[in-house]
Amino acid sequence: MSERLPDPPAGEGALAIICGGGSLPYALADAAIRRGRRVILFALRGWADPARVAAYPHHWSWMGQFGRFIRIATREGCRDVVFIGSVGRPSILQLRPDIRVLGLLPRILRLFRGGDDRLLSGVGRIFEEHGFRLMGPKDVAPELLMPLGPVGAREPGARDQADIAYGLSLLRATSPFDIGQAAIVADNHVLALEGPEGTDATMARVAELRRSGRIRAPGGVLIKALKLGQDQRIDLPSIGPQTIASAAAAGLSGVAVVAGTTIVAEPERIAAEADRCGIFLVGVPADETAP
Amino acid sequence: MSERLPDPPAGEGALAIICGGGSLPYALADAAIRRGRRVILFALRGWADPARVAAYPHHWSWMGQFGRFIRIATREGCRDVVFIGSVGRPSILQLRPDIRVLGLLPRILRLFRGGDDRLLSGVGRIFEEHGFRLMGPKDVAPELLMPLGPVGAREPGARDQADIAYGLSLLRATSPFDIGQAAIVADNHVLALEGPEGTDATMARVAELRRSGRIRAPGGVLIKALKLGQDQRIDLPSIGPQTIASAAAAGLSGVAVVAGTTIVAEPERIAAEADRCGIFLVGVPADETAP
Repeated sequence: MSERLPDPPAGEGALAIICGGGSLPYALADAAIRRGRRVILFALRGWADPARVAAYPHHWSWMGQFGRFIRIATREGCRDVVFIGSVGRPSILQLRPDIRVLGLLPRILRLFRGGDDRLLSGVGRIFEEHGFRLMGPKDVAPELLMPLGPVGAREPGARDQADIAYGLSLLRATSPFDIGQAAIVADNHVLALEGPEGTDATMARVAELRRSGRIRAPGGVLIKALKLGQDQRIDLPSIGPQTIASAAAAGLSGVAVVAGTTIVAEPERIAAEADRCGIFLVGVPADETAP
Repeated sequence: MSERLPDPPAGEGALAIICGGGSLPYALADAAIRRGRRVILFALRGWADPARVAAYPHHWSWMGQFGRFIRIATREGCRDVVFIGSVGRPSILQLRPDIRVLGLLPRILRLFRGGDDRLLSGVGRIFEEHGFRLMGPKDVAPELLMPLGPVGAREPGARDQADIAYGLSLLRATSPFDIGQAAIVADNHVLALEGPEGTDATMARVAELRRSGRIRAPGGVLIKALKLGQDQRIDLPSIGPQTIASAAAAGLSGVAVVAGTTIVAEPERIAAEADRCGIFLVGVPADETAP
């Protein structure tokens, strides 16, 4: 426990962190612990990393073991719940639904028929109906969110600024369609719009289009933004050193993300990586993405 | 020359067909010839297929040899010009600009900075300013355009219809951004939006996402539409038997394209291919894509 940060309000209890894949769950757990909060990890089998989970108080379960979650979280005194980390879209098999989830199954299947947004916010509502308070990273660890302005030594030039504005407009236009949260724009030309493949694969596509000569213009910017109306407690866009490395490998000049609604996975490493790769990373104002 | 079709109006002269890659230029040339029109192919080095070009009166040139085109087309008595076939975005090297193009180079370079639309319609305007009449496939060979309704034995079901409407809305929303002309939607979920990689590569991406388990929902529809405000004389979307085979390989239930503004490369083979693959191909009304 850090002594620099205030104690949590009395009665807050332990924070239940439902952990998917990647390193974000541990960055969030560490930040909450630094703020004096007790954390219990509910590690999702098939997604969370056992070696990292082991460092925290934890319970393993399948994604569909909601009855088990309620029982243990109640016993542990958790009321606040955070979902964090990647989970993809689980198969019914990976869910391993327990009896509590079976009762909710028709509703969950309906959610599955929509995009990721609908699935995630629907599952969030189910938690709330069972007496838990669903929190976002902003609520428990605001220091993990991207700040406004450049991170690292480089800054976007005039052409990059124009590409950023163009990309934000494009993402605003596609926002109602529950498609990806990222676009790659070079010189007012859209090189890629992210689908279910994820940001790294989208950048790999641009790298490949460049290798094959299909794209010849140099530079370009990866732009990531929250979908309009997206539940900010669940599935915020995130970036890490790997995002920067992939952007550099795709020949981009930089990365722009919306400040305050993008998680920076390893803040201490990302600026160094941007400088090492010679590209910029900038947080842009959220209001540019509002309708 | 066919005797079933009316002669062209007197004074129309030969049709100059500027040929890129693929089989469309020859389908269009054959259709024009069937209508009694004389054709001269201006085959673009690096794109047009020499074996197929050889069957028609033709001249080879680099894309940038505009002075040469003006000289020969004038000598051959061509006033009407059609651009057809794939050319990608040529490198400056592939252009091989002649002296006439060098004078236009600052303007062409500005066009290169925009998306494909801006490039193509800008180049079209340059032709017109030099006394040629730029025609579209619709003007010279309307029989190559997709009809309304199903082609082949299968028809879209209710869920497919919903996916088609969703995809058309998405393409309408992205239309101002000069991005691709195709989307893949399954069960109200956008699986991919086409970028510079082209339709076949976009479907290959979906096939790969399915193989890797990232996409689990079955079915889905490829939807192709003209961009709003796109010059219908240049770069119409097109489909051929390969589109159907790629759609089937990506596990889609069918393909929907806008009737009247989509070229069907090999109309005699595409219905058979759709039936062989067990998927539908349907032409949807153009007004659904209007704003």
